[in-house]
Amino acid sequence: MGAFEYHEGRLSVEGVPLARIAEEVGTPVFVYSRAAFTGALADLDAAFADRRRLICYSVKTCANLSLLRLAAEGGFGADIVSGGELFKALKAGVAPGKVVFSGVGKTEREMAEALAAGIMMFNVESAAELEVLSRVAGQSGRRAPVALRVNPAVDPQTHPYIATGLQTSKFGVPHDEAPALYLRAAADPHLRVVGLDCHIGSQLTSVAPFAAAAERLRALALELRQAGINLEYLDLGGGLGICYNAEEPPTAAAYAAALRPVLDSLPELTVVLEPGRRVSGPSGVLLVKVLYNKSNGPRRFVVVDGAMNDLIRPSLYGAYHAIRPALESDRPMEVTDVVGPICESGDFLARERHLPQVAPGDILAVMDAGAYCYAMSSNYNARPRAAEVLAENGSFRVIRLRETYEDLIRGETA
Amino acid sequence: MGAFEYHEGRLSVEGVPLARIAEEVGTPVFVYSRAAFTGALADLDAAFADRRRLICYSVKTCANLSLLRLAAEGGFGADIVSGGELFKALKAGVAPGKVVFSGVGKTEREMAEALAAGIMMFNVESAAELEVLSRVAGQSGRRAPVALRVNPAVDPQTHPYIATGLQTSKFGVPHDEAPALYLRAAADPHLRVVGLDCHIGSQLTSVAPFAAAAERLRALALELRQAGINLEYLDLGGGLGICYNAEEPPTAAAYAAALRPVLDSLPELTVVLEPGRRVSGPSGVLLVKVLYNKSNGPRRFVVVDGAMNDLIRPSLYGAYHAIRPALESDRPMEVTDVVGPICESGDFLARERHLPQVAPGDILAVMDAGAYCYAMSSNYNARPRAAEVLAENGSFRVIRLRETYEDLIRGETA
Repeated sequence: MGAFEYHEGRLSVEGVPLARIAEEVGTPVFVYSRAAFTGALADLDAAFADRRRLICYSVKTCANLSLLRLAAEGGFGADIVSGGELFKALKAGVAPGKVVFSGVGKTEREMAEALAAGIMMFNVESAAELEVLSRVAGQSGRRAPVALRVNPAVDPQTHPYIATGLQTSKFGVPHDEAPALYLRAAADPHLRVVGLDCHIGSQLTSVAPFAAAAERLRALALELRQAGINLEYLDLGGGLGICYNAEEPPTAAAYAAALRPVLDSLPELTVVLEPGRRVSGPSGVLLVKVLYNKSNGPRRFVVVDGAMNDLIRPSLYGAYHAIRPALESDRPMEVTDVVGPICESGDFLARERHLPQVAPGDILAVMDAGAYCYAMSSNYNARPRAAEVLAENGSFRVIRLRETYEDLIRGETA
Repeated sequence: MGAFEYHEGRLSVEGVPLARIAEEVGTPVFVYSRAAFTGALADLDAAFADRRRLICYSVKTCANLSLLRLAAEGGFGADIVSGGELFKALKAGVAPGKVVFSGVGKTEREMAEALAAGIMMFNVESAAELEVLSRVAGQSGRRAPVALRVNPAVDPQTHPYIATGLQTSKFGVPHDEAPALYLRAAADPHLRVVGLDCHIGSQLTSVAPFAAAAERLRALALELRQAGINLEYLDLGGGLGICYNAEEPPTAAAYAAALRPVLDSLPELTVVLEPGRRVSGPSGVLLVKVLYNKSNGPRRFVVVDGAMNDLIRPSLYGAYHAIRPALESDRPMEVTDVVGPICESGDFLARERHLPQVAPGDILAVMDAGAYCYAMSSNYNARPRAAEVLAENGSFRVIRLRETYEDLIRGETA
């Protein structure tokens, strides 16, 4: 049962009808469920309860401070990919010692900030980055805790843009170059080798690639142990999929079971997981209002007040998001595109969907819009960005104000 | 000769080396040339100098107030698609009577704002929108000046996302439904029929589709005249392409020549043009700094500090932007991808390019980045948005400040 279900004909979250939120806050608006967000984190944590583990929420999927605070209050860590995400995670109360810093393009400034904060681990993605990190650590008089992100060359069978463990991707260091690089890091007085990391992709709906990648990492961890390098952390990244349409992603328990053979053979290591979409994705929806119905030739369009600047995934990845009316409807079904006001044909939220007929003023929910939606939103077409709302236990509150026209010119010096 | 050329080995704009701007303002940074921007507007205007015309700069391509002010100071109008763009155009001094409002999803609030400002014309895109506009105009005691955006069903032979005149796109009203709708508008006391509009797509590199669309509009204009509806404006939209790679877009003169037969037969109409990319595109570059070189298997990557959040066109449209080093180089050439720090494989600025070898700290210019680049930028991966700079006549100034970490949490109420 999802966080967003119909009650007495009204699509609701935590006992609050979404239509009421749209009425009071306006549209477009993102609405998140506290219970769904914290529940997904707890679910993953419970699946690994019998061993040392740290769940680091992937900040890039949805970085609202109120959500980060929920993660922090649950004792969870943060997987960050920039200085901006470090800033937000710390601001929200995430313990610095539970922050892992990934990404292929860390700047010296970002490294210095993370060292000063005392983060748990840098996931280093290249030999060149290791050198820079050593230099920055030396300058700051600190030892940088490092893992290498190893590219296990496993095909995650997902969208090419979010497959990150292929041999030809920009991510990680090649598996066979890792041992030499580890030896170099272990000998560097400014570095402290603490972990081993991989991340093979996003929105995976099968456990097999995870198990294959973990198996490759186990072999490497044992090889390193023989070379006298003892690790503390085995970071298996994120990537667990969700159901946008008819996918059947693994349960947390099935995911844990698939990893168990590897993890049981490395009991001294703390397993680190970096779930993002799995946590935030189903926890959020985007509410939009119908502006117009129109037809062009054989094609029907519902024009709504949310657009690709609010939610670019359909346009960018061809992604599917279910659309549900805020009020249950017995009006006739029709096949229609749901499109926004932006002036390009790439501005669509859904294509050729079977939906009940709608009228101007109706509210539609774009489902599973918690991950990579607000986070990627822009001011394209000079559209102020949407508000964000958190619902919990029968009530709701705005956790990010809707932008205004004045916000559009902030920083412009003309 | 472009606005950005090498002088004494340094890629320069208006006499200023780009490397100096990167040094002083930091990277990533967008740099625009005043001369290129105003020159492109003047070039188009001159091509139509022998007739009534109004060039309305398409604000959505690049909406910095300083650029809008250049358009306003030149006496040009603005093509807007939202209330936010109206706000910016007026703020920059564009005459309200030279503003045309396009777009399939105008809200009542946006209509009221545009009516209050006294804009030149609403390009209405559906029967439903016409009704709403009439009601809003009635409520405000004003008569709304309208054109219908007619869908000429001409294939512009461009990227599907920016082809907007096809019969199956969300844009405009079907050609054969236009006369009836015009009669309805002409009979509406809250509306004043003033124009006829089309826009068939973006980045067109041939004049034939423009001529074909104009021909279809001429037939309609004559039909309307016979029905007693006399127009003031013939709005032929924008869409004139630029050279990103090896395209050979028409000159302004060739474009004008192709439209001449139609325009000469309708001498009483003011032709309205909505160039955007043609003006802003070649006027801007994005400067980025090299962070790392890395290889994975056979593939080489240059990791830079600009990313898909700054410039999403390669990822979203598969668009090509030339990459040029800020300092001319005789280092050996290699085939490389230029990628950003964002954690997805979709984050690339260029793929498999022949570039001279680069070292960390080197500055690269992503060319032709004036249109649809800053305008579509986001805070994805919690990256503050880039600064914008305007160069003119040997000097430069910041026209939009780089965002800070504090900007990332503005409006968050946690």
